[in-house]
Amino acid sequence: MSKTNQGNFLEDFRLGQVIRHATPRTVTEGDVALYTALYGSRFAPQSSAKFASAIGLAEKGRAPIDDLLAFHIVFGKTVPDISLNAVANLGYAAGRFGVQVFPGDTLSAVSTVIGIKENSNRQTGVVYVRTTGLNQRGETVLDYIRWVMVRKRDPNAVLAETLVPDLPTAVAAGDLILPTELQLDRYDAVLAGSPYLWDDYSPGEKIDHVDGSTIEEAEHMMATRLWQNTARVHFNQFTEGKGRFGRRLIYGGHIISLARALSFNGLGNAFKLVAINGGRHANPTFAGDTIFAWSEVLQRIEIPGRDDVGALRLRLVATRDCPCGDFPLFAENGHDIDPAVVLDFDYTVLIPRRRG
Amino acid sequence: MSKTNQGNFLEDFRLGQVIRHATPRTVTEGDVALYTALYGSRFAPQSSAKFASAIGLAEKGRAPIDDLLAFHIVFGKTVPDISLNAVANLGYAAGRFGVQVFPGDTLSAVSTVIGIKENSNRQTGVVYVRTTGLNQRGETVLDYIRWVMVRKRDPNAVLAETLVPDLPTAVAAGDLILPTELQLDRYDAVLAGSPYLWDDYSPGEKIDHVDGSTIEEAEHMMATRLWQNTARVHFNQFTEGKGRFGRRLIYGGHIISLARALSFNGLGNAFKLVAINGGRHANPTFAGDTIFAWSEVLQRIEIPGRDDVGALRLRLVATRDCPCGDFPLFAENGHDIDPAVVLDFDYTVLIPRRRG
Amino acid sequence: MSKTNQGNFLEDFRLGQVIRHATPRTVTEGDVALYTALYGSRFAPQSSAKFASAIGLAEKGRAPIDDLLAFHIVFGKTVPDISLNAVANLGYAAGRFGVQVFPGDTLSAVSTVIGIKENSNRQTGVVYVRTTGLNQRGETVLDYIRWVMVRKRDPNAVLAETLVPDLPTAVAAGDLILPTELQLDRYDAVLAGSPYLWDDYSPGEKIDHVDGSTIEEAEHMMATRLWQNTARVHFNQFTEGKGRFGRRLIYGGHIISLARALSFNGLGNAFKLVAINGGRHANPTFAGDTIFAWSEVLQRIEIPGRDDVGALRLRLVATRDCPCGDFPLFAENGHDIDPAVVLDFDYTVLIPRRRG
Repeated sequence: MSKTNQGNFLEDFRLGQVIRHATPRTVTEGDVALYTALYGSRFAPQSSAKFASAIGLAEKGRAPIDDLLAFHIVFGKTVPDISLNAVANLGYAAGRFGVQVFPGDTLSAVSTVIGIKENSNRQTGVVYVRTTGLNQRGETVLDYIRWVMVRKRDPNAVLAETLVPDLPTAVAAGDLILPTELQLDRYDAVLAGSPYLWDDYSPGEKIDHVDGSTIEEAEHMMATRLWQNTARVHFNQFTEGKGRFGRRLIYGGHIISLARALSFNGLGNAFKLVAINGGRHANPTFAGDTIFAWSEVLQRIEIPGRDDVGALRLRLVATRDCPCGDFPLFAENGHDIDPAVVLDFDYTVLIPRRRG
Repeated sequence: MSKTNQGNFLEDFRLGQVIRHATPRTVTEGDVALYTALYGSRFAPQSSAKFASAIGLAEKGRAPIDDLLAFHIVFGKTVPDISLNAVANLGYAAGRFGVQVFPGDTLSAVSTVIGIKENSNRQTGVVYVRTTGLNQRGETVLDYIRWVMVRKRDPNAVLAETLVPDLPTAVAAGDLILPTELQLDRYDAVLAGSPYLWDDYSPGEKIDHVDGSTIEEAEHMMATRLWQNTARVHFNQFTEGKGRFGRRLIYGGHIISLARALSFNGLGNAFKLVAINGGRHANPTFAGDTIFAWSEVLQRIEIPGRDDVGALRLRLVATRDCPCGDFPLFAENGHDIDPAVVLDFDYTVLIPRRRG
Repeated sequence: MSKTNQGNFLEDFRLGQVIRHATPRTVTEGDVALYTALYGSRFAPQSSAKFASAIGLAEKGRAPIDDLLAFHIVFGKTVPDISLNAVANLGYAAGRFGVQVFPGDTLSAVSTVIGIKENSNRQTGVVYVRTTGLNQRGETVLDYIRWVMVRKRDPNAVLAETLVPDLPTAVAAGDLILPTELQLDRYDAVLAGSPYLWDDYSPGEKIDHVDGSTIEEAEHMMATRLWQNTARVHFNQFTEGKGRFGRRLIYGGHIISLARALSFNGLGNAFKLVAINGGRHANPTFAGDTIFAWSEVLQRIEIPGRDDVGALRLRLVATRDCPCGDFPLFAENGHDIDPAVVLDFDYTVLIPRRRG
């Protein structure tokens, strides 16, 4: 029998199955530097240990890592077990960031199968998993649900059970986890690079992030390997060149990080992710595409007991080769997604409030 | 009103204006590794903590970072405020390196407007700023003057004041700052990789650095993002493809670092920059260009009270797609710059002296 | 006289000559992150400090670096002295890994010339060197023999001596060096990502590693610069474009690391290299090539006195643009190497044994 990993097919999953994923990973300052080199992120608390210390986010004098860096590493661990035979990564829900991650922490991941359903073609189906990322003390740094369309090994195989889980449309305000020492009295908005605070954003407001970033093969592959994500479609031009697109596909998370970094221009004080409410990769992306992004403020959320910090629920839309001055989202028929849109991401961030 | 940064236009600057730049940045060993990966630098004190310790340059057992790495990070902070609307980065002067930078230090930057002058076309003008890079203790790690051609928002705007500052042609020998603990008794030239010391270089001597290095899009973008430099022309092929050059422009500092790394071959003991006397980016560069370099010894400088170390003032010239065996600089008319020349950089380095 | 390094030509080498190589190098977590980004390696003890600690491989809570990362850094130091004028890197033998390398260690390299022989054309010859990589305490982290075809400066030069050294076909089992604290009682194969242990592999068994990885110019150049390897053929498209291949050549070690990372899929518990028995770069590789790999188990080696760990001697074959389902090695004539094969590498790894 082959000793190589064939991955799981639809009929290999069982409701309630718990999967301990391989390859624990110690995060380092090297990962942080690469994250900056790959995305150019500028949010101050993740860029400066001194800034992080001033607002209670540092640990042993070190800045926390970018929340999406933690997300990508945790996600990467799940690929060999969950999505090696995936046709498509369909969506995210109920994502919540827990304790912060610092260089030196070792991350691992565990997933539970919470839903499974065959498609009518009997060739494929959808698996829903809840994945928890843990640090070396067993504390949750992140948990989220994702669902994936997976091939069946044998079209005639019959699934033992079918369940489509109820998914929340958003993480409730009361469920958001704030860093325990967070204290924004000494938050310096000039150093952070933007004068706009929680109070300045209104539901319905749209922001064009203006700048564009062109993807190179070397960059998305280095990123995806850094997360030890093994999905084959990203790395192998010989095989993908003969495939549906003729090219290597970009890992969807690469687009999330590019768009988040672009969003600094307009959301410079939105310094920390606390929830991923939902998201989908609306279209594939390829090297050579230039990514643009815009945001819509969906909701302004008060944090109980806090007058220094609030939350914003944001829709982050990324496009390829399409500047976002007119906020593209839907196609002309008003229903389908605009073919230029590659990401529609719904997440919640912390941002300082104006006081006094 | 848009919440995105529009940058400053010529008429937004005021003589004496002090600008605290955003995005403080903690430097790490990850940045150092990327600097090596991007430029292949081999100067021994920045490569080896043990070597640095032996000559009094280490701190807590760690090697100092490359001086140009500090320069790029400080420079990067100034872009959103100074040069987002720049037409061209015209020159540098009076640059001086102060206390050394080590992994763990947090750098920030402050600039003062020291000159401003409208061009006769009334569309653009030149702004002169003195920028100071500071560490977390408020110590100066670097300060330098640069001047930039900037667009006006409104051609009819009238400048309140005009001043073109006097700029020194070079940093005076007495103004050079030596690391306080520097002591070259145990300098090992075999380990450093070159037998040539201060005494072996003569004013007027020219050195062809022989090797060439081809620029890739992924490399210059990763570098420029690592410095959190947001100048748009470097990243966005969609927009630049429609522009004057049809391509993304390379950040000029990328060329300085490439040329400095090439200069190791011939200047292997020139281990530390102490001054940037001047410099200009003579022509733009693009991915695919192969950078070559040559140096001229402009001056051999004695350091008062030191017989172990001297300084060399050097001209570093970089070309694209043009080997430097005949030291290209001026075009055939003897006046214009050779179109193959992309950098003409005047700087001062420390180098051990022969003794006994 | 030129101050640039011309490198050594065949007639410059002397039997018994000892060469202290330049550019000592402190390894950091930044190098480790780049290694992961460039190769996507997933072997657990080098990925996770916690995993490494559980099996006695960590030091001060830190994971050891990948053995090949140490190899590349040591190899890189030798290039300016040994192979700057090389026509070809012919082979490796008698390679042995010594004490482990951790971030913070400073590596240097010393080589001894152990063989020299002119070719019949009198234009070139072969030099054999034994290179030792040392840490800052002078402990051996690696030593190996390599031989290189080098140009003569003067075809009429006469060599003082000729000697072709006897080379062992493999490092003897009794000569393998195990990390002193290694203890596999707590080895967690689920976390490591593979259920297959020493006992499950049989001599003669072949494993197709299935996945492929496409090389980009930016990646191989960043890797090769990170090792401070100065061989000119890797970096300079202007000159190589006019040369034999019309393209930049990839550093052979880049292929070794790509193939080793691919081999995780099938050899996930083969967690540490202890010997390089032999190896040759059978054909050149270029950007755009997709690298595939397969392995053959050559020998299953018991480690005296250990029932928790054994060794496997493996042949690792890498190809370009050629999936390895039928284990390509020889051409149709049964004698020449298959033109798709780019690496034939013979090495020994540690792997846990099944017990109880």
